[in-house]
Amino acid sequence: MAHRLAALVAHFSAPPTSAQDKPHIHDLNPAYFLPRAALIEPSAPAILHRDRSGATITRSYRELADRARKISVFLAKRYPPGTKIGIFASNTPMFLECLYGIAGSGLIQASFNYRLSATEIRDVLEISGVSVVFVDYEFLEILDTAMNSLKTPIEVIVDLDSADPTYLRKFRASGRTNATHNEIIQSLANDETPLDSLHYEDQDEDNVLALAFTSGTTGKPKAVEYTHRGMYLAAMANIIEAELNGSSTGCRYLWTLPMFHAGGWSFPYAVTAVRGLHICLRRIDYGLVWQYLSAGPGKAVTHYNAAPTVNIQICEHPSARKVPEPVMVTVAASPPSPALFQKMVSLNLRPIHVYGLTETYGPISRGYILSEWALESEEQRFRKMARQGHGFLTSRRVRVVKQKEEYSNDPTSLIDVIPNGSEIGEIIFQGNICMKGYHNDKDATSKVWAGGWLHSGDLAVVHPDGAIEILDRGKDIIISGGENISSVAVENVLQSHPAVLEAAVVGVPDEKYGERPKAFIILRSDWKNGDSQTVKDSIISLARSRLGSFQVPRDIKFENELPKTSTGKIKKKELRDAERVKSSAQKLTVRTAGA
Amino acid sequence: MAHRLAALVAHFSAPPTSAQDKPHIHDLNPAYFLPRAALIEPSAPAILHRDRSGATITRSYRELADRARKISVFLAKRYPPGTKIGIFASNTPMFLECLYGIAGSGLIQASFNYRLSATEIRDVLEISGVSVVFVDYEFLEILDTAMNSLKTPIEVIVDLDSADPTYLRKFRASGRTNATHNEIIQSLANDETPLDSLHYEDQDEDNVLALAFTSGTTGKPKAVEYTHRGMYLAAMANIIEAELNGSSTGCRYLWTLPMFHAGGWSFPYAVTAVRGLHICLRRIDYGLVWQYLSAGPGKAVTHYNAAPTVNIQICEHPSARKVPEPVMVTVAASPPSPALFQKMVSLNLRPIHVYGLTETYGPISRGYILSEWALESEEQRFRKMARQGHGFLTSRRVRVVKQKEEYSNDPTSLIDVIPNGSEIGEIIFQGNICMKGYHNDKDATSKVWAGGWLHSGDLAVVHPDGAIEILDRGKDIIISGGENISSVAVENVLQSHPAVLEAAVVGVPDEKYGERPKAFIILRSDWKNGDSQTVKDSIISLARSRLGSFQVPRDIKFENELPKTSTGKIKKKELRDAERVKSSAQKLTVRTAGA
Repeated sequence: MAHRLAALVAHFSAPPTSAQDKPHIHDLNPAYFLPRAALIEPSAPAILHRDRSGATITRSYRELADRARKISVFLAKRYPPGTKIGIFASNTPMFLECLYGIAGSGLIQASFNYRLSATEIRDVLEISGVSVVFVDYEFLEILDTAMNSLKTPIEVIVDLDSADPTYLRKFRASGRTNATHNEIIQSLANDETPLDSLHYEDQDEDNVLALAFTSGTTGKPKAVEYTHRGMYLAAMANIIEAELNGSSTGCRYLWTLPMFHAGGWSFPYAVTAVRGLHICLRRIDYGLVWQYLSAGPGKAVTHYNAAPTVNIQICEHPSARKVPEPVMVTVAASPPSPALFQKMVSLNLRPIHVYGLTETYGPISRGYILSEWALESEEQRFRKMARQGHGFLTSRRVRVVKQKEEYSNDPTSLIDVIPNGSEIGEIIFQGNICMKGYHNDKDATSKVWAGGWLHSGDLAVVHPDGAIEILDRGKDIIISGGENISSVAVENVLQSHPAVLEAAVVGVPDEKYGERPKAFIILRSDWKNGDSQTVKDSIISLARSRLGSFQVPRDIKFENELPKTSTGKIKKKELRDAERVKSSAQKLTVRTAGA
Repeated sequence: MAHRLAALVAHFSAPPTSAQDKPHIHDLNPAYFLPRAALIEPSAPAILHRDRSGATITRSYRELADRARKISVFLAKRYPPGTKIGIFASNTPMFLECLYGIAGSGLIQASFNYRLSATEIRDVLEISGVSVVFVDYEFLEILDTAMNSLKTPIEVIVDLDSADPTYLRKFRASGRTNATHNEIIQSLANDETPLDSLHYEDQDEDNVLALAFTSGTTGKPKAVEYTHRGMYLAAMANIIEAELNGSSTGCRYLWTLPMFHAGGWSFPYAVTAVRGLHICLRRIDYGLVWQYLSAGPGKAVTHYNAAPTVNIQICEHPSARKVPEPVMVTVAASPPSPALFQKMVSLNLRPIHVYGLTETYGPISRGYILSEWALESEEQRFRKMARQGHGFLTSRRVRVVKQKEEYSNDPTSLIDVIPNGSEIGEIIFQGNICMKGYHNDKDATSKVWAGGWLHSGDLAVVHPDGAIEILDRGKDIIISGGENISSVAVENVLQSHPAVLEAAVVGVPDEKYGERPKAFIILRSDWKNGDSQTVKDSIISLARSRLGSFQVPRDIKFENELPKTSTGKIKKKELRDAERVKSSAQKLTVRTAGA
């Protein structure tokens, strides 16, 4: 015990990096927001959660800080600096406790997408090199499978969240699971390590705080390195842009966005900075979302973040009603349609349209609504707001540069496109809210940072007013008869048809034009029983009236569901690949028939 | 001309400090908020001002950025890096143009208190070492006098603000004034140096951005060094605390606080960051303040900053009416009374109570109102909010440490007081929103930073809930019969009497107790004609009911005015000194009589 205590004291006694020679500088650290919140307003509610049994759990900031502190002490006793600690859970209290607990221990946090397959999970465990994983009971089984093919053993700590403890028996038998999350906290019931002595303020701000994984729709996922400085300045920008500080009855943030996704866009820190309430949500249950949105004055949700597809479901839900107090909704992940913004505003859900990548801590630009548009039509204003706009307050200016065959390391090779709304280029970023690099992957890092700018792979134009607008995410652009077609532009038009709930447009192989656009559409429920050809004709007729003829999809397929990523981005690659397979099969049939 | 252009190109071509090796870091620079605002929303109104002729001047962000850019080009042509440029003006458009113009040229800005005497002005000119001063025509004469005794000549650039140009003749004759502010801008009408090429983003963030002067109520003023990083993070905190981002119709900020004072508490940058409107105000004209407060939807002031004394005048003005939309008011400079907060709230002026020093870019702590106080009385809640509370989001924790006879450089000698609401100590600060040091004054710098913490000289307690509360600014504490009396606590009680508009309490010499409290009171106008002894008795009777007998002032003096600093802080030293002189004179008389 004595040597453990000594090790603990040594672990926590590193002097602040700069306090001695430059006391006017302290290293930026977003995890400090938790002990600060607990100091200012210990009784303020920090967490609201329904556990597996359906019971409501609430935790104050004092409790959250105390539980996180115990995780820090536990980890600091066992693991040397630099150790990586995994989190594999949906949006639960444990996730937040671990985020802060790991930061307080000075170690590095890595959180995983719980929708991955066992093989992919093995990949992210290997790439991140975690020594421990905090796992929610829901994902214990798949984690166990994934670990079977790992060389290095990993310690597993389970959060039962009131699930049946006998569930653990077989995993305990395998020797991988020694303790539950709650047992660890209970074992430190009498621990009184002061909050001040944890590593909430003494890290070099350029150290790695966390690893997040690129969604990896193609190839192996990459681990993105987030620094303390970057997460801090991303949180500052998100507080300001989402107005987390602006609600007179306090901020109540609903966790519709997965916490693992791009560091939860810095919101685990941003919400805590304003001493807001984290309303946890294991998965998006739209009925429950509306219960939280309708909980009444001083209780209802004030803020949430979600992709357009999630917002469509929220707006279309039978419980949807105009909420009395405005709710600020940060919308990102894929380009939204102006029609969605109109619908949201009619329900008093005020969209804040942002854009970013996992590599930019989530949001890094915003489509602002400008007062000078006051005289334009609402549709026109929302169309402009649906653009990706301008860099965040804490970002450098976002640029769009001419595309090159090959990336060059010469910064002068990056030539801005003409701001005419038509010259297409690639969006690039630089500065504080860009990742440090890909973990243990120098080649990928130097490639994505070619010329000292972070290459998004997204194609955009710059409008004469200076706002950028994405034409398409990377490979989603359709090249038909040598013309570029923005799938997003076509989707926006389809989306404005009253029958259309969601639309995805991809390029499918075409003998004559190389590619042509094809639309996959989910109809609103009240349109599903109509004559499908009549509905198709009506949609195509609308498209013809608003688009050039080469942009109009000739093929429309009605679907009940579209394949999506964990954040609700439509997996267009999957749609495209399926079409390619069909097309090859057809060709083969034709050839065989003709042979 | 050619060599000038070459010099200009050289001046502006320094590569960004960190872009090459660490492209994920860019140096924090608050001046960048201007070109960003001009890029996003060029037509948004940036400045509203009434010039000397009474005409209304408005400038858009495009115009402000353009005029500032021309100042940058002008300065960069003439002065080498490191040159200091002075601003000597009240809250006018020129001040803002110069703040950004100087930052864009990469030079250092120093702004001066326009209420100083000619001798004091000479001092601040010497201490700052400015080569140029931008001066408002109002202060040209006193500046001219101050410069007579200077060894090094200083170039003077005058802003006429529509004043009579013939006014300049005699100063031009002296050779000191070659051009007006507008002439310089006009001379660069055809200049097209791109905004991007100015020094808005390429400074080392720890470089000095500006010098501000301590109010210097005692001894010579000292020049406080502000860095880019510090001003940036101070601005972030002020945006969040004052909710500059929270107004749905945009931020319209009224410049009641002098821009020269403690860097305008970072608001020249914070307001620009949210693309707010700077409503300039040469001096506080309460009628005009109410015109701006009552200008109607989308036009009325949404935010202002002011000391308690200024807020008292605003609340008491005949035009005072409850405003329809809440106005956020950052209140600081001296400890406010709970009664003032109640009055403000009744007018829908929502106080944000902050505390800080010139050495901390203005505000560094805030008296938060907590939701857990909901069941307490309004008076009780405002009493708690009137405390100095907790460190800002971007500050380290504010500490109160036991007082020492001598400051030590050993950080372990700084022992926190017990948080019992009674043990008195000194407030100390550390971290990003503390000044770098006193310009060219190593001794004063190392003294104030003793032990690596910035010593405020202010005395405070820490309450059991963790909030700090100032008992008194430095020397204002009264020591009577060995007991400490907080002048602020006594003032708060006096202020709650309906007759009292303003109260100042100082220690006056007392044969028996060393010191005893004496009150200087301004009565509300409707009480001025009453019997003054009856009013005094009533005030003293209230004080007796709320204070220990040793704290009750036996002497009350009614005044029509109290001596104040430029920010509205009452100059207690002046009141104290006058009493001391009187007392010595009396003693002398007594002795003479008895001799």
